Amino acid sequence: MIIDCHGHYTTAPAALGEYRARQEAELKQDPGHRSEKGVLGISDDDLRKSVEGAQLKLQRDRGTDVTIFSPRASWMGHHVGNESTSQAWTEHCNDLIYRLTRLYPGKFVGVAQLPQSPGVPIDSSVRELVRTVEELGFVGCNLNPDPSGGFFTGPPLGDRYWYPLYEKMCELEVPAMIHVSGACNTPYWQTTGSYYLSADTVAFMQLMESAVFRDFPGLKLIIPHGGGAVPYHWGRFRGLADMLKLPPLSEAVLENVYFDTCVYHQAGIDLLLEVIPTKNILFASEMIGAVRGIDPETGFHFDDTRRYIDQSSRIDDAARRQIFEGNARAVFKRLKGALG
Amino acid sequence: MIIDCHGHYTTAPAALGEYRARQEAELKQDPGHRSEKGVLGISDDDLRKSVEGAQLKLQRDRGTDVTIFSPRASWMGHHVGNESTSQAWTEHCNDLIYRLTRLYPGKFVGVAQLPQSPGVPIDSSVRELVRTVEELGFVGCNLNPDPSGGFFTGPPLGDRYWYPLYEKMCELEVPAMIHVSGACNTPYWQTTGSYYLSADTVAFMQLMESAVFRDFPGLKLIIPHGGGAVPYHWGRFRGLADMLKLPPLSEAVLENVYFDTCVYHQAGIDLLLEVIPTKNILFASEMIGAVRGIDPETGFHFDDTRRYIDQSSRIDDAARRQIFEGNARAVFKRLKGALG
Repeated sequence: MIIDCHGHYTTAPAALGEYRARQEAELKQDPGHRSEKGVLGISDDDLRKSVEGAQLKLQRDRGTDVTIFSPRASWMGHHVGNESTSQAWTEHCNDLIYRLTRLYPGKFVGVAQLPQSPGVPIDSSVRELVRTVEELGFVGCNLNPDPSGGFFTGPPLGDRYWYPLYEKMCELEVPAMIHVSGACNTPYWQTTGSYYLSADTVAFMQLMESAVFRDFPGLKLIIPHGGGAVPYHWGRFRGLADMLKLPPLSEAVLENVYFDTCVYHQAGIDLLLEVIPTKNILFASEMIGAVRGIDPETGFHFDDTRRYIDQSSRIDDAARRQIFEGNARAVFKRLKGALG
Repeated sequence: MIIDCHGHYTTAPAALGEYRARQEAELKQDPGHRSEKGVLGISDDDLRKSVEGAQLKLQRDRGTDVTIFSPRASWMGHHVGNESTSQAWTEHCNDLIYRLTRLYPGKFVGVAQLPQSPGVPIDSSVRELVRTVEELGFVGCNLNPDPSGGFFTGPPLGDRYWYPLYEKMCELEVPAMIHVSGACNTPYWQTTGSYYLSADTVAFMQLMESAVFRDFPGLKLIIPHGGGAVPYHWGRFRGLADMLKLPPLSEAVLENVYFDTCVYHQAGIDLLLEVIPTKNILFASEMIGAVRGIDPETGFHFDDTRRYIDQSSRIDDAARRQIFEGNARAVFKRLKGALG
C-alpha cells in the first residue's frame, strides 16, 4: 500500500470560495463581525466532480492508494478576521473533508484544519481537534506555526502556549503537520516558494531549541516540503546543536519529528533519503498543489514524487515500503481504524 | 589558487564590541542620539593577534590562499538605532577590514558592510560603497535584504528602492552578497539557523519574480549558505517559474545569481554541485562562523568545505578549479587589482 500523507483539497467547488469571499466582505464592513457558520450548499455530486478527474485520477495514474487529506493550506488564512471567522470557516473546510472520506473510504483519510487566530488561546483548536478526531474519524491535524500569515510574531513552537494542544494530540494519539497558510505580506514573501520553505526551517530550529519533546515524549510532528532547508543543511544543524550545547539531533528531535517527501526532483529526494534516517521519512506528494506542471527534463509531473523514490539508489525495497506505508502507520496511529 | 569568497571578521578585538556597547547605551538614554564616529583604539598588533591564530592559521591548515573578508554579519545590526548609528559603526567595521587587507595583502581582500537603516534611502550605502571600493580597494559589498532584523517589512529586492545601489555596483563592477544580520525577534528566529537560511531563500524568490536582471544585466549577486533551501528544492523552483509564467531559471537568474559552498556536509555539497551549473558556484567556508566544531562523523571541522569539494565525485578537476578560483575572479572583477 502507498499512503500519501500530504494532500490538500485544492479543487473544492466554487461555493467554498464564495463563502470565504462573503466572510471577507462582512469583515470589510465591520472588522469585528461575528461569523455564523451558515450553510455552503455543496452537494455530494459537486464533491465527486471536484476530485474524480483530479486527486482520484492521479492516485490511479501514479499508483498510490490513499491520501491523508486536509483543507487547502494556503486558504486556512488564520490571519483573516477574528476567532469567529476562523471557527466558522474551519468547521466548513473540515466538514467537506469528512464528506469526502465518507464518499471515498480507503481513498481519503481526514486531517483537520484548526481554527487558529493570532493572539487567541489555543483552546478552540483543541476543541476542533477533538470534534474532528472523535466525531469525524480524522487521524491528525495541521498546525500553523505562524497564524499571523508572514510576520512571525506569535509564540514559537516551544512556547507553553501550544501545550494544551500537544497534550490533547498525545492523548488522542494524533500527529500534526506543521504547515503555514498563505502569506499576506507579499511581495516580501511568496507563499509556496519562500514562505512555506522558510516556515519549515523555522519550525525545525524552534523544536530543536525547545523542551517540547522532553515534556511530550509521545508527540509526533511532521515537517512538510522535505523539511524546508534542513536536510540540505543537515551538517549545519548537527553543528549548531553542538555549538548551542544541545543534545545530538538523533536524540533531540528524531524520535518525534518526521519529514515528508514533497521535494520535486531526483537529486533532492536522493539527498533526503541519504541524510535522514528512513524511519523519519513519510511519503507525500502534495498533489494537486504548489507545482502542477510537467518537468521538461523528465517528461513527468514535478510532484509525482513516487517516481523519485522508486528510482532512487539510496534505499532498498524494505526502506521503500517503510516510507510508502510503514512509517505513516506508525505516526498516524489512527490510520488502522480508517484503513484496517 | 583557492579563493574563499565568504569570510567575516568574527574575531575582532574587544574594543570593537565595546564601541558598539557604547552606541547602544547612548541609544538607551536617547533613541534619537546622533552617533559621532570617534575612535576605536585598536592597534595593528591587536589586529594581528586577532587573526594569526584564527583565520590565517585555518587558511594554512586547510590549504586555501585568500579570503574575501567583510565585517561580522551578525553584528551589522542595521535595525539598531538610526542612520547615524549605522553610519559610524559601519565605517569603523570597514576601516578594520581595510587595515587587515594592508597588513596581509594577498591573504585578505575587503568587502564592505553598508550603513543601511530601515526606512532610510539607500544613498548613504551608495556613498559608503564608493568610499570602500575607490579609497579602500574593496571588491564588493554585503547587502542586507532585511535591515529590520527579522520582520521582513522592507522593500523586496526587486523594488526600485535598491536601484541606485544596483546602478553604482554595475558602474564599479562589484557584486553583492545578500546577507542578513542577527535576528532581533528571537526566539521566533534563530540567527544562524533559521534566519540566515530563510533570508537566502526569500532573496532567491524575490529576484526570480523581479525585473532586476532585465534592468541591470551586468549585476552580480551571491546568495550565501549554499543558496538556503533553493538547490535542495531546485525542482520546486523550476516548477514555480513555470506555474508563475516566468522565464526558465537558466535565463531569469543564472546569468546573475551565484551560490556559495557554505554547506557543511558532503551530501549537501554533492547536491549543490549536481544541480547548480558549475559557473554559478563560488567556493566559500564562512570560517570562523556559525558552526565551529568538529564533525564527529568525519573528524574534521564542519566548515572545512574544501574537503567536500575535493572529495566530491560530481565534478572533475576543471570544474573544481572554476569553483575554487575562476568563478570568483569572474564575479569579483576587481580581484585582479588586489591579487594580480
